[in-house]
Order: sequence, then C-alpha cells, then structure tokens
Amino acid sequence: MTPFQFTITAKDGAARRGYVDSAHGRVHTPAFMPVGTAATVKAMTPDALISTGADIILGNTYHLMLRPGAETIAELGGLHRFMGWDRPILTDSGGYQVMSLSKLRKMSENGVSFQSHIDGSAHELTPERSVQIQHMLDATITMCFDECTPYPVEQNTAAESMRLSMRWAERSKSAYRFREGYGLFGIVQGSVFPELRAESCRCLTDIGFDGYAVGGLAVGEGREEMFKTLDATVPHLPEKRPRYLMGVGKPEDIVGAVLRGIDMFDCVLPTRSGRNAQAFTRFGAVNLKNARHKNDSRPLDDQCGCYACRRFSRAYLNHLAKSGEILGAVLLTWHNLHYYQQLMEGLRNAVEAQTLNAYIENVYTAWNSGDMPSV
Amino acid sequence: MTPFQFTITAKDGAARRGYVDSAHGRVHTPAFMPVGTAATVKAMTPDALISTGADIILGNTYHLMLRPGAETIAELGGLHRFMGWDRPILTDSGGYQVMSLSKLRKMSENGVSFQSHIDGSAHELTPERSVQIQHMLDATITMCFDECTPYPVEQNTAAESMRLSMRWAERSKSAYRFREGYGLFGIVQGSVFPELRAESCRCLTDIGFDGYAVGGLAVGEGREEMFKTLDATVPHLPEKRPRYLMGVGKPEDIVGAVLRGIDMFDCVLPTRSGRNAQAFTRFGAVNLKNARHKNDSRPLDDQCGCYACRRFSRAYLNHLAKSGEILGAVLLTWHNLHYYQQLMEGLRNAVEAQTLNAYIENVYTAWNSGDMPSV
Repeated sequence: MTPFQFTITAKDGAARRGYVDSAHGRVHTPAFMPVGTAATVKAMTPDALISTGADIILGNTYHLMLRPGAETIAELGGLHRFMGWDRPILTDSGGYQVMSLSKLRKMSENGVSFQSHIDGSAHELTPERSVQIQHMLDATITMCFDECTPYPVEQNTAAESMRLSMRWAERSKSAYRFREGYGLFGIVQGSVFPELRAESCRCLTDIGFDGYAVGGLAVGEGREEMFKTLDATVPHLPEKRPRYLMGVGKPEDIVGAVLRGIDMFDCVLPTRSGRNAQAFTRFGAVNLKNARHKNDSRPLDDQCGCYACRRFSRAYLNHLAKSGEILGAVLLTWHNLHYYQQLMEGLRNAVEAQTLNAYIENVYTAWNSGDMPSV
Repeated sequence: MTPFQFTITAKDGAARRGYVDSAHGRVHTPAFMPVGTAATVKAMTPDALISTGADIILGNTYHLMLRPGAETIAELGGLHRFMGWDRPILTDSGGYQVMSLSKLRKMSENGVSFQSHIDGSAHELTPERSVQIQHMLDATITMCFDECTPYPVEQNTAAESMRLSMRWAERSKSAYRFREGYGLFGIVQGSVFPELRAESCRCLTDIGFDGYAVGGLAVGEGREEMFKTLDATVPHLPEKRPRYLMGVGKPEDIVGAVLRGIDMFDCVLPTRSGRNAQAFTRFGAVNLKNARHKNDSRPLDDQCGCYACRRFSRAYLNHLAKSGEILGAVLLTWHNLHYYQQLMEGLRNAVEAQTLNAYIENVYTAWNSGDMPSV
C-alpha cells in the first residue's frame, strides 16, 4: 500500500507544485476539490468528473451521517464504492454544516448535539464521533472536528473558539485510527487575528498532522482580510505538509492563495453557479441566461476542451438555461469544473516553469478583457 | 442523398420488422422515439442517448416555436445542429400541445390562435405554419397539423373533428416542400369509432403520405379500447408505409401495438418516470424511493447494460432519489430509455426469428414475477 505522502516538486516564491500520494491514488497540487455534498458532485457522473481532470473530491460528513447514514455507507463498502468514485476523497468533519444547517444546536466542551435539518432526528457530533464517521466512510483524508468561528468576532471569543478547536483537534488525533495511505488534517482557526492564527499553528504542529487546513476564512471577511490572514498563517505551517484553504473560492481567491503557498481548495462555486447559468471562463464570469447569447452559434469558449464547449453553442446553453432544463445544469457544471481544473493545471505548470507571476498576469488580463463581443 | 424509404425485412403475424432510411440515417423498426420536448431529451446528453440505442428522437413544434423560436433554430442550422443530435428527428405538429398547454385558444377552419403558456405572447398555428416551422427545424419527419380529438366524445363531434383534421392533412401536404431523404406523415383520427377510423385512413391514403400515424389514442380510453381501435384501423393503412402510434406508451401498450402492426412509438413515460424515481425493468416497475432498496448493494438489474446498472447500486439510486439529486434523474432516465430500447430490440429480433409470441410470453412472465426479493 502507498504511504500517505506529500512531495513538493517545484517552487516559485511561496507557491509550490507537488503531489499527494494516497491509498486511492495521486493528487496533483495545487488541487481543486469539487464538492460532493450528498455522495454526488451535483449534476455530474463520476466519468464526467474524471474528464474534467479532478483528482480528488470532497464529501460532507454532516450530510452523509444524516442520509443515508455512515453505517449504511460502511456496510455498502465505503463512500468510494457507494458513489462510484475510486480516486481520493477528503471528508470535512461536519463542524461547519452543523452550525449552518442543523436545528436546535447545543454546544458543549464535548461536542455539538443537534436536530437533523431533514427530519428533525436527534444527533451528536463530537471529535470522536466525527472521526469515527469519516473512518466508516473510508475517507482518504479525514478532517479534525472543529468549530468554524463566525465572522465578525471579538478577539476573546475567537481565542476561546480556537482553543476549543485545538482541544478537539487533539481528541480527533487520539480517535483517529491510522491506516497506511490515509491521512488526517488539522484545521487552523483564530479568525483574522495573527497571534491567534500563530498560536493555532503551533498547537496543531505540536500534535502533528499529515496536512494542515486553514479554516474560518471565506466567511464574510473579504478577500483582502483573507489574504492578510493567510500571510500571517502560512509561514507558521510546516513546509513539508500540504496546506488546504477550506471553502475557497472564486478563481481570484485561488490564484492569490496559491501565491501564498496553499496547495488544496474546495468550493461549491463552480457547481452551484453551473446550476444557476453562471459560467467561469477565460473571459471572466458569463451569465448564460443573458439574451445576448440567444443567437450565438459560437461555443462558450472555443479554446475550452470540455464537453459543453466541444459540442454545443452559446445559443443552446442559453436556451437550456432559460428553459430550466437539467441538461443546462449538467453542461454548465461540467464546464465550470473543467475551467477550475484547467486553472489549477495552469498554476501547477507555471510554478514548475517558475513563471507564475507572468501566468497570473495573463489570466488577469483575459479576465479583465471581459466576454467576447456578441455577434 | 438517401431517399426516404421504408423497408420491411420480416413479419410475424401482423407485426413487422424493418427500417426507415432517411437523410439523417436509418431507424430500425419497431422503434421507440424518446421525447425531446424543448430540444433536449430531459436529463440526457446526446452521447448518453446514443448509448441507449436510440435511432430517432421526437421534437415538439409547439415548445420550440415559443422558445427559442423556429427562426432562431433555423438560423443556427436546424434542430439537429442546435441540440447536437445528428440522427433522425420527428417533430410533432403542435396540434396536441396547443390544446393541452396554451391559453386563450381560438379554433377555426383556418387553424388555432393562442397565447404562449410561457409569456402570454400571441401565436397562430395553421397547417401551413406548422409545416413551415417543421421545415425550419429541419425535421427528418414532419407531421401533419391535426386536431387531437378529446375523449370521451360523441360520434358526430368525432366525425367533424376528424374531417377537419383531414382537410388540414390535405393543406399540410400542399404546404410541405419535398426534400430527398425527408418524409411527411399523415395522422389518422376518428376516436374509438371504427367507421370514422376507416374513413380517415381512406382519406389519408388518397392524399398519400410517407408514413401514417394513429393519433387520438392514449387519451384516456384505456388499453382495451385502444387495442380495439388499432384492430379497426391498421388494416386500412398501406402495408408498405411505416405506422406510428402517437404518445404510446407503457411497455405493455407497445408490445400489444407491435403485435397489431405498429412500427413507431413515442412517449414521455421513460423520461418523466426517471425523474420521479420510477424504473422500468425486466421485473416490471420498480420505485427506487422505496426504503427496501436502502441497503441493497445490487444493481437495479444485473442483466442490464446501461450506465446506471453497470456502475451503481440500488442503495445509491435510492439515496439519490430520496435526496432529490440531479444525478438520480440522469441515471434513472438513462436506465429507462435503455430498457425501452432493449425491449424494442427484443421485439425486432423476435419478429425476425418469428418467435414473437414466445418472446412476449417470456417478457410478461418476468414482469409478472415482480421485483427480486429484497436482501
């Protein structure tokens, strides 16, 4: 069995190119992980997903423990087999969703008890239970159970919340059952306070993890504050472990975070936007519902190799979006995920060639030029 | 260019096996045409559709004239190019949908004026306009504009309605512009009255069409009445032209109609049911939302070669259906269309082998045995 291992193959400034080897295969970094909330990356078959170049996807502990249930997935051979995806899967710990989705939450030192947003049934998540669920799901990468500190927040409250997450990180590590080829990541908290972030990094590296996530960002603080916090956080993380910025983000966010040394990302944006007729392209965002596309026989992007761009016109995508057709959601999700993966590949190649700044400048120039004129 | 031509290669009783050659390729008959209402067979990519074995699909004049508009599709190179489907397309005439969907209809000898159900805009459909629209769509097979006689109905009213459709059929024929490899079908009306059906058949064969559809059935009359009407209609249709039973149907309806000499079918049932977690299988209908599938690691049908059955478990399909995931609609639509095409292939092979009755008996035995016991 392959050990779980991160290898850095090139650097350009703080940015790194590398790969994570695991029991389920290799993840090229910087990597974008499509979000597969309920054991499906919405509107995508596993084969379509592979065609976009995705190496790894994310699953949601909170959603899966409620439906169909972790025990059910375990009996069925784990999440990979259940959803027909044999490449790596990272599962979040449920800490974020339990705060944003569940009803009648009650938090204590031990964990969170709550009611399911689906059927009102009572559940509990603790560091031990979260890690156990992720084990049952057979997650390639398990995330520590944490509290995602809300924003804005007072420094005292942020400190208490971060320290609770650190105690939970220690309990998560204790509860985690080592398996060759699998990994456990800690999550840095501390909101936008540099000293809290530094403390959190020290605390986690003392415990020791296979990778380090930066949590509690992309929660409303804005891009500038996020980047400042990354600048104050990343230097405190071990050089030789993968770094994962949770829930990020827009293409611009990803580019800025790669420049700051982040290796992994996840976000619902490409999939959710795809279902809302919003496309990410070389030319920036394009709204396919706009009437300017109605008679446009050109592909969304003639340089894009995705199924939607190879086979269909903007006029057709506009028609599907206006008609609320499932195929519209399928094709635009497909395109968006392909675009994100192409961006990651471009970033990886640029780090390797040590041309990252020039690459990013070109990307921005194209974004800023806007969509091509209508016909 | 291939001429539009029907060839019968085998017979078993009244049932025929053959093929229709056209400008867009060959259609093996008896054929099932998936319904592509709004320029998409709902939830299917064209490639997925091809993998089910579909030779031909149906498009809806009514829907397409309203959105995106026939002129728009014509400018974009026709319906085939617009939706990325290069095999044959049959378009209905709009006669049925205008009565079932539109608002503020006004019927006259000339045609029907109505308001769009989408935006209330005013439109008119006449035999000439319907045929012109189908020409602009570049339909491989154009249907005459007709009135689908409601059910139940008095014989006098049915006669008047049928005779109006016959006058419209003559005008449709006059308006139709011949193109090599394309065809025009007439539509028999007359409700459940044998003498009216016979009159309608005579009338249409006098005008002369490339194929003959039986309309005004599957509108509430029930299977027995439908089969009786087919028995009173089919013998009056030319032997050497394809016969199309419109809007039919359930697998049992199709089997019974093939036995009675029908060559072509269309129905929303496999696609609509797929979006509602209803699967058609060798074992009969299976509701994937049923809790009995929750822990079932077996495929929906281990003898089915569709993507859903090759790659996923009943437990996963149950999970997707319960969660309302798009992938659930995609996979069950895929399976259902594959099942329908397999059934048609089985019927074609049985006609060729002159073992149709035995084949149908086996199909019924399996249907009646019901779904496999749960694990």
